[in-house]
Amino acid sequence: MLPFKTLIETDKSLKLPVYQQISNRLIGLIQEGLLKPGSFLPGSRVLAEHLALHRKTVIAAYDELISQDWLEAVPRKGVMVAANLPVIRPRTYRKTVTPYGEEAAFAFHRIPTLPVPTPPPATGTMLVLNDGFPDARLAPLNEWVRECRSVIENPRYHKLLMYGKAMGSEALREAMVKYLTDTRGLSISADHIMITRGAQMAIYLAAAMIIRKDDYVIVGSPNYFYADLCFEQLGARLLYVPVDEEGIDVDAVEKLCSSKKIKMLYLITHHHHPTTVTLSAARRMKLLAIIRKYNLPVIEDDYDYDFHYSSAPILPLASADHGGNVIYIGSFTKSLGLSIRIGFMIAPASFIRGSASLRGLMDLRGDNLSEQALANLLADGTIDRHLKKSNKIYKERRDLLCYLLQTRLGDAVQFTIPAGGMAVWVRFSQKISLVKLAEKARARGLRIASGEQYHYGAASQNGLRLGFASLNNKELTEAVKILEKLVREELKA
Amino acid sequence: MLPFKTLIETDKSLKLPVYQQISNRLIGLIQEGLLKPGSFLPGSRVLAEHLALHRKTVIAAYDELISQDWLEAVPRKGVMVAANLPVIRPRTYRKTVTPYGEEAAFAFHRIPTLPVPTPPPATGTMLVLNDGFPDARLAPLNEWVRECRSVIENPRYHKLLMYGKAMGSEALREAMVKYLTDTRGLSISADHIMITRGAQMAIYLAAAMIIRKDDYVIVGSPNYFYADLCFEQLGARLLYVPVDEEGIDVDAVEKLCSSKKIKMLYLITHHHHPTTVTLSAARRMKLLAIIRKYNLPVIEDDYDYDFHYSSAPILPLASADHGGNVIYIGSFTKSLGLSIRIGFMIAPASFIRGSASLRGLMDLRGDNLSEQALANLLADGTIDRHLKKSNKIYKERRDLLCYLLQTRLGDAVQFTIPAGGMAVWVRFSQKISLVKLAEKARARGLRIASGEQYHYGAASQNGLRLGFASLNNKELTEAVKILEKLVREELKA
Repeated sequence: MLPFKTLIETDKSLKLPVYQQISNRLIGLIQEGLLKPGSFLPGSRVLAEHLALHRKTVIAAYDELISQDWLEAVPRKGVMVAANLPVIRPRTYRKTVTPYGEEAAFAFHRIPTLPVPTPPPATGTMLVLNDGFPDARLAPLNEWVRECRSVIENPRYHKLLMYGKAMGSEALREAMVKYLTDTRGLSISADHIMITRGAQMAIYLAAAMIIRKDDYVIVGSPNYFYADLCFEQLGARLLYVPVDEEGIDVDAVEKLCSSKKIKMLYLITHHHHPTTVTLSAARRMKLLAIIRKYNLPVIEDDYDYDFHYSSAPILPLASADHGGNVIYIGSFTKSLGLSIRIGFMIAPASFIRGSASLRGLMDLRGDNLSEQALANLLADGTIDRHLKKSNKIYKERRDLLCYLLQTRLGDAVQFTIPAGGMAVWVRFSQKISLVKLAEKARARGLRIASGEQYHYGAASQNGLRLGFASLNNKELTEAVKILEKLVREELKA
Repeated sequence: MLPFKTLIETDKSLKLPVYQQISNRLIGLIQEGLLKPGSFLPGSRVLAEHLALHRKTVIAAYDELISQDWLEAVPRKGVMVAANLPVIRPRTYRKTVTPYGEEAAFAFHRIPTLPVPTPPPATGTMLVLNDGFPDARLAPLNEWVRECRSVIENPRYHKLLMYGKAMGSEALREAMVKYLTDTRGLSISADHIMITRGAQMAIYLAAAMIIRKDDYVIVGSPNYFYADLCFEQLGARLLYVPVDEEGIDVDAVEKLCSSKKIKMLYLITHHHHPTTVTLSAARRMKLLAIIRKYNLPVIEDDYDYDFHYSSAPILPLASADHGGNVIYIGSFTKSLGLSIRIGFMIAPASFIRGSASLRGLMDLRGDNLSEQALANLLADGTIDRHLKKSNKIYKERRDLLCYLLQTRLGDAVQFTIPAGGMAVWVRFSQKISLVKLAEKARARGLRIASGEQYHYGAASQNGLRLGFASLNNKELTEAVKILEKLVREELKA
């Protein structure tokens, strides 16, 4: 008889019933080749004694394995390991099988990762000047939870649940028609709207609908790095076009269009990432003419449209006459404090249908409950009130950060006050190493990026995005104080 | 002067301030070529009179456009359309630009859609025998909302929010290590877990990591159609292997492996979709030997593991000795009543890291709030209690539906009582057209599928999945009554 006492360990404190612990272990012994097909197990009384357990527990384990075909009850002889199991060659004995400790034996594809060491997350009371995140303390999360409760208390909801669509909830799409018409001058119906998990999913889906291997795609230099990586993953060859204080260079775009088959243009019309510039009116007009002339597919990523402080934001390209070529992308994620990620794509109806099919293969559909709750918050004006309130606060924080940067670091930095968004694009004196600066800041309780991600595919401007939205006035003042001290040290060194 | 009175309409009942309505419309007129670069606008007093508005409103509109570079203020002459806008050739005049009414002028990729006309959603009090959905009325949604509230009330949460990971929340991954060890005998750490939006996203990500164009992928015949479509979208050539009452034919799998370079095998070990069969112990053993011998990458889709009624579910392949080749996929979506979709993938650490990078490009990361709430529900035993309670109820419903089918439709249908899951796989007499049956049922207030999706890539078995979990006893009885009547009519005809 095998030394079952040492081979089978049981632990009454586990959630898994003891009889199942035994049956699982017996399966392991069969799989490891220690219990061979056709061999007999000890009687239940014997095994129970060995394991110091009640006989009923062992019988339950045997019954379980008989019902699962691992064991067979042979009348008058006892319980046998099923004879029709394939003979397994004994393998090196390992007490616990931990297959995931091994690397996969097959070769899989290595997906490009962001070629940037992100600084470790902030700990404890550490201050963060981030890439441009909202202040979750201001987000209408209480209202969101309230609406979730009201949705699940509606008895009709339980029926609606079963019919989620890859395009998103009808209620939310209808609420968005009104919202987007009011705020962006878009002339659309629900057929032109698809709800996505966040803006990034909309970018991926739209790009996957357009790009095939080795296609040329025009992006800004610099550009939002996650968009670049996404297009490269889909097989695109990126062509970089300069971004200056008026936005992307549209003459350079036209030059490329007239010399090559360009499959797509990606651009951020408001508060470009990372530089925060907004495309000028003149360039918009010119770009619209180019789009129509070349039937140029465009992804207009307008992730930060709702956060604008200087004047009303310029209407998106999507609201002008582009012949259905502009795929417009936006997001509610920042309004929801990054807790719940909901974005959207606006496009011609057939493009939306295709994107929804693709999304179905990737992710079936979104969360009904979250989408319904957001629809309620849009309809009852909560989102609108939140935007009014937070825009006022973010404007003050922008002004404070810019004032502090100007007065404390004026000789070491260059920046333009951004018209909107949640970060200032700050270029540092070449004497300052941002990697070193980030490291030293961390030691003083301030987390900033080290800047490499902002020149993916572009020349370094020795720049950093310094997010102002998530810190209050006291925290911003404290953060710049730390920064000033370190910059002074660096300049002296 | 242009007929501004008819060209510019304003509406005080809109959320958009009137001055912005005017400025948006003026931009439209410039873009449509009606207002040309260098031309002068009427004075604010004149335009205000024409539009019957206060002069200040018009001034605010002009100021807005000046700040956006569309207009220029020329001293002593008035307000002019900016001269540096490119000259736009006048186009056919359209009062409102509705570019999304047009189809995209560029060619985009048509994504394969499910080649099946899904019956329209149920309306009003219509009964539904669905594909196998849970009863949202039983789901712990109140508890879920309660945990969402507790998460947002935690002041530390607002900091945590900013550091979401593509792999999923650390708290949830830690809670899942315990949960998966207890319930599935998996020997893993958090490094082997990735949280996804739902099981479908895990399938897509894993497949995208493994499959390249023209690779051979083995699937069951029949198979879960969304998996087939997903692999085909990724470029795979599907090889179908029969599924019988013991599950997928593993000898046929080995035969293919020995004759062709097989890139991947997809299988559903418990409650196969659509047939509900569970892979037998003998075939599991043989399959594990094949996996090791050929280093065969396997996606084990175990979407319904938590719902098992006949005996304890057999341990997944993933818990046995597979050398890191089995990518294991599961889901909490059914426990959360389909409201919030959260799934997971278990794989070797490097595979998880790669999948997380890819997910980042598609979707950055999940919803922090939802993931944290689920972590709490796992940790405090809510999910566990829900599963115990709902398994008891679903078992009763399964037994009732099977009893009703047997006694009322016994001569017209064939089925096996499923050991778990949420649907019975019912094969109808060849005399019955399921398309017609679905149509007629609809007219009587019962929604059933028309069956085509269940033989995507396989011979039709004239079968339907009839979901029992989402209907209570009264509803199930009513549903079968309708079905019986229609089947009798069909058989007579």
